[in-house]
Amino acid sequence: MGTVEQARCCVGLVGPLDVKRAEYEFATRKLEELGCHVVVLDVTTRDMDDDRQGHASDTHCSPRQVLDEIISTASFNALDRGERTEAMRAGALRILGALKHEGRLHALAGFGGSQTTSLVTWIMRSAVFEIGFPKVAVTTMMAGDVAGYAGETDIVFWPSIVDISGRLNSISELILTNTCHAVAALAASYQARLRASQPTGGVRQASRKPHVALTMFGLTTPCVNECSRLLSEKGFEPVVFHASGVGGRSMERLINEGLFDAVLDLTTTELADEQLGGVLSAGPSRLTAAHQKNIPQLISVGALDMCNFGSLDTVPGAFRERKLHAHNEKVTLLRTNAEENRQLGEVLVNKVKGSTFKILFPTKGTSGIDIEGGSFEDKEARGALLDGIRSALGDASSEHLIPVDLHINDAAFAARAVDELVSLYNSKQPET
Amino acid sequence: MGTVEQARCCVGLVGPLDVKRAEYEFATRKLEELGCHVVVLDVTTRDMDDDRQGHASDTHCSPRQVLDEIISTASFNALDRGERTEAMRAGALRILGALKHEGRLHALAGFGGSQTTSLVTWIMRSAVFEIGFPKVAVTTMMAGDVAGYAGETDIVFWPSIVDISGRLNSISELILTNTCHAVAALAASYQARLRASQPTGGVRQASRKPHVALTMFGLTTPCVNECSRLLSEKGFEPVVFHASGVGGRSMERLINEGLFDAVLDLTTTELADEQLGGVLSAGPSRLTAAHQKNIPQLISVGALDMCNFGSLDTVPGAFRERKLHAHNEKVTLLRTNAEENRQLGEVLVNKVKGSTFKILFPTKGTSGIDIEGGSFEDKEARGALLDGIRSALGDASSEHLIPVDLHINDAAFAARAVDELVSLYNSKQPET
Repeated sequence: MGTVEQARCCVGLVGPLDVKRAEYEFATRKLEELGCHVVVLDVTTRDMDDDRQGHASDTHCSPRQVLDEIISTASFNALDRGERTEAMRAGALRILGALKHEGRLHALAGFGGSQTTSLVTWIMRSAVFEIGFPKVAVTTMMAGDVAGYAGETDIVFWPSIVDISGRLNSISELILTNTCHAVAALAASYQARLRASQPTGGVRQASRKPHVALTMFGLTTPCVNECSRLLSEKGFEPVVFHASGVGGRSMERLINEGLFDAVLDLTTTELADEQLGGVLSAGPSRLTAAHQKNIPQLISVGALDMCNFGSLDTVPGAFRERKLHAHNEKVTLLRTNAEENRQLGEVLVNKVKGSTFKILFPTKGTSGIDIEGGSFEDKEARGALLDGIRSALGDASSEHLIPVDLHINDAAFAARAVDELVSLYNSKQPET
Repeated sequence: MGTVEQARCCVGLVGPLDVKRAEYEFATRKLEELGCHVVVLDVTTRDMDDDRQGHASDTHCSPRQVLDEIISTASFNALDRGERTEAMRAGALRILGALKHEGRLHALAGFGGSQTTSLVTWIMRSAVFEIGFPKVAVTTMMAGDVAGYAGETDIVFWPSIVDISGRLNSISELILTNTCHAVAALAASYQARLRASQPTGGVRQASRKPHVALTMFGLTTPCVNECSRLLSEKGFEPVVFHASGVGGRSMERLINEGLFDAVLDLTTTELADEQLGGVLSAGPSRLTAAHQKNIPQLISVGALDMCNFGSLDTVPGAFRERKLHAHNEKVTLLRTNAEENRQLGEVLVNKVKGSTFKILFPTKGTSGIDIEGGSFEDKEARGALLDGIRSALGDASSEHLIPVDLHINDAAFAARAVDELVSLYNSKQPET
């Protein structure tokens, strides 16, 4: 791949050419007409000859090339279909990652059904391709749920309407033509940003203000909106994530990508879903990135009074007799009880111990319905949450825990949260 | 809107500016920098003054303008939130539809959460915006299932990563910048096609061959692949749809858009899901478009031996003791029984009566597992399906029904299906 042309932007196309050659060749021609250089990675998984399978060139990686250095032909042929797919995607990621690292790749695309969509989005979800790097999946899978393919990334999902099966027709040509116009424009734009020395897609360069990540839920919105307003006034750039599982994951990823200077993690509700099996878990690595990146975080307990389920009939039997709140016909909330709250307090502390953090605790309620007269008011559970935090912190409580006699959605709570965060942030800055 | 500039391509942006003004203004500036003319439709649903709310101009439709001729201010203010949204989207569709009709609109985009995504995709799903017309939804909803928002259309779904809530940040600016580059390229490309007098996006003009729509399922793939091959040889253009609910809907829509000259509807399995409550129903209008457009159809009974459910625990209790086949961990198939098959035969006939059609019936089996020794072999049920068809056709059976002593996946069955379709197609052509 040594002579990839430098002047034109470069698009990587990944797919199994044994069954989809017509579509990939059509897209290659179209992208080249639009001024792009194209690199095609053939991830065909059928048995391989010892000879290099298919033709290989500057712009075409044969299946054998994709696997080079990863696995031998004989070993590959001994694998089952799933293992072959894993080997192929690993090989493709290695080649594309190297091109990306050298600044010679400006967009990725793939076309197919469940197998191809799964393979190309696995590559696209890699941390190598940061948020903002153009990634487009043309897929037959829009009939179903594509959330799993998207993960926490900005992969664009494009319905293919008709089957992508190696035989072109007017509809697939139309859809692929549209896709190529979009991908070519995205690649050119990314290349231009790269040339302007904005390696993270221009995110950091677009603003010199320190970036603060915030977490919000419908039931903590008043608090987070007020914090955003105050942070803007103080010269910070607030970026709000919806604590819906994927939102928390996106935030952790972007913290890891180095885009944030501080975190105002007011809505840690995803920990309850992780612990109790709710539908909005952000996974076990939630609340870990700020520590890894050594940036300060001001934490609160927003919406830890609830764990999310779908419609009422999807709530697990063990919770059916508990206090439930029908948020709407698609969302049922479970009130977390005292014992669960005590554990959640401990879990929260154990995740952030060792980082630069403070925990601000609103003793008058943690969400829009955990409030005096609200449907999830439960002073015992709220007290247990505070006790759990205090006991896990032990002697460090006086330094890290700030109970305040306010409700989370009080304006004074937001003001205090911002003041504490700014103070933490300033204490981390080198003196000038 | 009288003076919309003709030279530049035009992008329509739809959204509630009361809560998302910053994002829409940013995108407008970016699209204008990229050479587009932009029309913004403000679909704010809060109470309206009698004065025209907000400023209005050539490029900006205020909420009052969106509603003009649809509903009065007083009536609007008396509506609940859902009704207001319905009025707003109807008004926006009327304005955008008129621009589209005049050839003065070349792409649509919208940005938001569940409310805005729901509103803008409702507009995008309208038949006014044919498959191939650029439609892009930037959405916070990728955490969940966007299939309902997509319908049978080619709306592109773009994850917003962060909240779209009227406050810009580096991430939302980056995502919207990428979106604008793609939308501008799509709009310019659509406008160019339009200027070349290809009003349906070039689909018909790209090929003068007669277009044939085909329906396929995993378990009828050998048949449909062979039919595609034979049709291509005979000078037709085959277009294959996956009979997964959305596939059937897409095909019916594209038949209604006038893109097809004949239909080879070999895999009518979606009727079983519609009748028994399976997960892959294509709705009640399946098998109606060919009749409406007066094009010939050759029909078979592919995969009517099965109704689709999700994982085993999602199969309704009434079916738990029936013959089930675990296709994989996510798909469980129910064998349709004799009585259901008799009804399905009648339903099928009643849907196509009066159109130009023939029904080709493979008496040795209707799918890859309804075959001698297969897990869904059931001669009684297969016979009942044939009886249902025959009894519903009555005297017309001899003209419309062709039982053949073959399995659906036999090559000879495919050859016969193509011969019968070509014969029907030729009989409909004016003599030369």
